[in-house]
Amino acid sequence: MNITIIGSGNVATHMAAAFKNAGHRIVQVYSRDIQHAALLAYHVGAEAIDNLADINPDTGLFVVSVKDDAIATIAEALSAHQKLIVHTSGSTDLSTLLAFTPNAGVFYPLQTFSKIKELDFRSVPLCLEADNDSILADLKQLAFTVSNKVYTVSSAQRRILHLAAVFACNFPNYLYGVAQDLLAQNQLEFDLLRPLILETAQKVLEQEPRNVQTGPAVRNDEGTMAAHMQLLSDMPMLQEVYTLLSQGIIKNNKGLTADE
Amino acid sequence: MNITIIGSGNVATHMAAAFKNAGHRIVQVYSRDIQHAALLAYHVGAEAIDNLADINPDTGLFVVSVKDDAIATIAEALSAHQKLIVHTSGSTDLSTLLAFTPNAGVFYPLQTFSKIKELDFRSVPLCLEADNDSILADLKQLAFTVSNKVYTVSSAQRRILHLAAVFACNFPNYLYGVAQDLLAQNQLEFDLLRPLILETAQKVLEQEPRNVQTGPAVRNDEGTMAAHMQLLSDMPMLQEVYTLLSQGIIKNNKGLTADE
Repeated sequence: MNITIIGSGNVATHMAAAFKNAGHRIVQVYSRDIQHAALLAYHVGAEAIDNLADINPDTGLFVVSVKDDAIATIAEALSAHQKLIVHTSGSTDLSTLLAFTPNAGVFYPLQTFSKIKELDFRSVPLCLEADNDSILADLKQLAFTVSNKVYTVSSAQRRILHLAAVFACNFPNYLYGVAQDLLAQNQLEFDLLRPLILETAQKVLEQEPRNVQTGPAVRNDEGTMAAHMQLLSDMPMLQEVYTLLSQGIIKNNKGLTADE
Repeated sequence: MNITIIGSGNVATHMAAAFKNAGHRIVQVYSRDIQHAALLAYHVGAEAIDNLADINPDTGLFVVSVKDDAIATIAEALSAHQKLIVHTSGSTDLSTLLAFTPNAGVFYPLQTFSKIKELDFRSVPLCLEADNDSILADLKQLAFTVSNKVYTVSSAQRRILHLAAVFACNFPNYLYGVAQDLLAQNQLEFDLLRPLILETAQKVLEQEPRNVQTGPAVRNDEGTMAAHMQLLSDMPMLQEVYTLLSQGIIKNNKGLTADE
């Protein structure tokens, strides 16, 4: 398939590589910054452009991987070509594209991407949406060429998925950084914690998180929690995080939902 | 080496298995609950006891893996045998043992253990402490028979390490559970998020957490954050978590420490 990539960020980079590796042809890569476009275009054998007026109409699909607030403007500009347009955003409704073209869909890869780290794209869940069965079927066919994990997810569900991903990915990564800071302040290497971080994630690949919860809060070990609060006495913001998350664990453990 | 295991919980179970697999002899397993003692004792070919009066003195080491508030009582009872006693706790000082015997040390495995999940003990960081070089040398020798990652860590550093582990392990696992609940409420499978959780952990094995932070907060994407708060409007406790952790990410991103 001939595919045009709009964007040159983390998602655009990994999607373009995955399509290319699956045998598709990347026609062009667009970025407002021609150097960014050129770097990605070079890697996937495409032409780099920084002006939507230079779009090559010989494409079958526009993959729009740009900031959420730029999707509508881009979609409007691309709609003149009357080709299928998909965006890759977790938090933008399909209706944002449908406002400009009926040839629209969503192709949302639920993964955290960094340009500096390769990953196995075949294990990336792809969440697809379209408002007609023919487009959805085409997207599914394309999706299976790059991943084994293809789901149909509505816009409403995708919003929840994106929110859940913030809790399951962005916030844990922030907490890893908090832990690293605590160690660094005490002449301890982050390497000490890395096996623990990996094992914590690997545990929930097979188990439910609640069934493998460990630590002072789930034991309701008040002595240890008080000692930890004492260690954080110069860091009120971290005390607040510690208290709030410990309360959540304690409530879960009592069999209540987090907000009862 | 002849080793006696005091306790039958997650840590005791994995430590006993690791020692046994490394060729040491597990003499006895003690638990207040004889059935718990018997189960672990069976797996490692030891005798099960539920009374400290039945301790076999033909041992070289007592490994005390019990709740923190029981360590002192146990140490006092064991000290009569004049053998080396170590505890495996992240949050108990060496001085708790030294109050009863000079033959004391700490053998703290920095990992999250579940009886239901095996792991590669050779990758578990072991944090050792003793107040004389001869005991420390003995503990190091023993530690290297079961792990490749052996560190000398003071009681003060170990307290920080344990606190950091709460942030890097217990809290992320809680957040995985929050994400799972959000998905379940919207007819979405947790399997959708599992690859993301694993990749998030794998990223920081090579990188610094701050350098791989993703999500709306690090982009200061106020629209998405406001939409997420709206989705959480029935869950004030999760709104509080969302706000607090997002603020932490935003502050980090501005190059400030979390508490400035």
